Amino acid sequence: MTAEIISVGTELLLGEVVNTDAQYISRCLADLGIDCYFVTAVGDNKSRLRQTVRTALERSDLVILSGGLGPTSDDITKAAVCEEMGLETYLDERQIERIAAHFKRQNKEMTENNRAQAILPVGCTVFDNDWGTACGFGYEKGGKHIILLPGPPRELQPMVDNCLLPYLKKLSGDVLVTHDVNIFGIGESKIAEMLGDITSSENPTVALYCGDGEVRARVAAKAETEKEADEICKPMMDKICDILGKNVYGVDAESLQKTVVTMLNKAKKSVSTAESCTGGLVAKRITAVSGSSEVFELGVVSYSGRIKNEVLGVDNQVIAKLGTVSGPVARMMAEGVRQKANADFGIATTGVAGSSFEGKPTGLVFVALSDGEKVFMRRLNLGRSSNEREYIRHIASSHALDMLRLYLCGDDEFLGGGMTDEEADKNYEV
Amino acid sequence: MTAEIISVGTELLLGEVVNTDAQYISRCLADLGIDCYFVTAVGDNKSRLRQTVRTALERSDLVILSGGLGPTSDDITKAAVCEEMGLETYLDERQIERIAAHFKRQNKEMTENNRAQAILPVGCTVFDNDWGTACGFGYEKGGKHIILLPGPPRELQPMVDNCLLPYLKKLSGDVLVTHDVNIFGIGESKIAEMLGDITSSENPTVALYCGDGEVRARVAAKAETEKEADEICKPMMDKICDILGKNVYGVDAESLQKTVVTMLNKAKKSVSTAESCTGGLVAKRITAVSGSSEVFELGVVSYSGRIKNEVLGVDNQVIAKLGTVSGPVARMMAEGVRQKANADFGIATTGVAGSSFEGKPTGLVFVALSDGEKVFMRRLNLGRSSNEREYIRHIASSHALDMLRLYLCGDDEFLGGGMTDEEADKNYEV
Repeated sequence: MTAEIISVGTELLLGEVVNTDAQYISRCLADLGIDCYFVTAVGDNKSRLRQTVRTALERSDLVILSGGLGPTSDDITKAAVCEEMGLETYLDERQIERIAAHFKRQNKEMTENNRAQAILPVGCTVFDNDWGTACGFGYEKGGKHIILLPGPPRELQPMVDNCLLPYLKKLSGDVLVTHDVNIFGIGESKIAEMLGDITSSENPTVALYCGDGEVRARVAAKAETEKEADEICKPMMDKICDILGKNVYGVDAESLQKTVVTMLNKAKKSVSTAESCTGGLVAKRITAVSGSSEVFELGVVSYSGRIKNEVLGVDNQVIAKLGTVSGPVARMMAEGVRQKANADFGIATTGVAGSSFEGKPTGLVFVALSDGEKVFMRRLNLGRSSNEREYIRHIASSHALDMLRLYLCGDDEFLGGGMTDEEADKNYEV
Repeated sequence: MTAEIISVGTELLLGEVVNTDAQYISRCLADLGIDCYFVTAVGDNKSRLRQTVRTALERSDLVILSGGLGPTSDDITKAAVCEEMGLETYLDERQIERIAAHFKRQNKEMTENNRAQAILPVGCTVFDNDWGTACGFGYEKGGKHIILLPGPPRELQPMVDNCLLPYLKKLSGDVLVTHDVNIFGIGESKIAEMLGDITSSENPTVALYCGDGEVRARVAAKAETEKEADEICKPMMDKICDILGKNVYGVDAESLQKTVVTMLNKAKKSVSTAESCTGGLVAKRITAVSGSSEVFELGVVSYSGRIKNEVLGVDNQVIAKLGTVSGPVARMMAEGVRQKANADFGIATTGVAGSSFEGKPTGLVFVALSDGEKVFMRRLNLGRSSNEREYIRHIASSHALDMLRLYLCGDDEFLGGGMTDEEADKNYEV
């Protein structure tokens, strides 16, 4: 079975957005072992869209379109496909209800043009949209399958996972199983070097994906049953975990913060955060995890020296001597917030995310973890190029979470051993 | 002149990388006012690539390819194009020298297959590559222009800026200017209805883009000069701003938080945040803006009733009576953090982002703004479906920022008028 993707939207042709939808769908096809030969982006123009659909249906068995399912007059995907394929349509009462309910939940009024979103080809498989008004669908005609999906990634991605994947699994024969090994703390090239010829294995395959300062090693195996495919993956995953050691923070883990919150829950321990350069991001990531209220009660964003002193008890003389971006300040922030919340751990960040500050370079960040007795520190140099504010903040917040993870693993050694306040101050003064 | 882009590389079809090259080239074309009608991604397969090039040359005046110019056997773009167009080639001695120098700078040896990268069509305009070995080129035949660019973004982007842009400027006439009107607080369908037939205007065009609970109305005009195009946009933008009123938070604004921080800076006012359900997101968004340290010193994430009471001074009796998700608690959080930081404003959020809590439904959020005298409140119902935690948090944080924006606009009326503590508690008890 060969597939192709058509992404609809003039914003793609103007370069206003990058085509992440096509990437998401491509990955899903690759995971299923379906060959995708073309991805075409076309604007909100019916004749060019029809031409593109026509060509696609001639050369591919499966055509997946995304975008142009909205309620406004420039949303023409459904009409173009139905006209091109000569499909009869009907008004789907169940979708009308779903759309009406969607508006009701938001205390908004449903407009007349939203009704058009419930018009569907007779005989299609409807894909419900849990995140918006536009439903998608799958349709088969003469052995060719055509799929329509909404454009906003927030709506498309769950629909791919919940509707498209099961739809396509029925069409395909073999089962493909994938597992991710989640890695933090070493870069892609280094990992590739450490894994060596593992990455040229054929079944299972091993591919590295990086993003947001993390790397995923994706292990994928094909077999007749899910169980067999799983058994092919298992030894490879063990091998990768073995080689990369403590840099592996999870297998099929949702996120670093999810891993940390789960570990805290299990250990019945709590954490509090004191943030300067990360400005609330560490707290935001922890509280993004369902169940975090069991392990997290207080986060302080202390964005000035005054607040670091008044709210967290950081010594003003230390600030005067070393500046707010220094190891001792990070240490005092961590211990200060820990005490304030009466938590088991305090984690803190202070650093330079914007332009050079206190004579310190962009990207210098101190991260501290205190358990009330010992303190653990990292000094990071995350400076890269211009416009890196969000990068530095994100990586710094990951290190804060990672230190807590390693502590909870009981791996003091990997963390460089705990220090007394005096040792920490001596080693991380600047 | 109409253009299209062909991105070459199997990694694009496997979803391993997102197609940022196409976005970069598209933007360049849009800036020049050249209409781009198609973007096609195709794999490293000569027959499918030739078929794609053939179709493109039939329907477009300008065809821009990227990727597949490397030294290995799967880099087939140049050969496919030359075969398809029947172009004669030669070995460019100047490029051989440039490639050799490139290797020398890196203390590496030039391999034989790198010489193939200096083979070019006779009569082409060569594009030097300052960042890698593959050179690009432009070629004209029978009024059709074909461009080849390298795939790695680090090599492609400077070549687009330094070589492609000047090459195309010579070919094109018109200039395209675009402006965004940034909108918060009303949905896409409602906006479309309010704007009516404005959205079918031809020059300027008006298009709506939505994401993250916001909408941008993009106004685009073509003319001979930038000044003329700007003059065509202006009345349309005024009209849109007029119709949508206070829901417009900016024109060509970077973000809601940037607008708010700029307004605070201008007014020399400061804000502090107290967050429950948004868990640090409001602080994170404010501190993402460069210059925010002038207007923001303290954010508190109070994720339990105990911390709300101990750190922010929320009355325990009110929590016992109404629960933490209630208007009075939001009000006390806002005023509590304002006093603690000695700031001009306090903004607070408390709500249900996860599963139903205190018998209150998912998506119920109270947002409060206090200026020390009066209090402003919003009660939001953001529940939609499952797995919506991040959505609720984001929209709630936008409302917190939006209330502050409206206050700074001096628009009490739009905010429903300020209330005394007693009024707020009465109206927003649950």
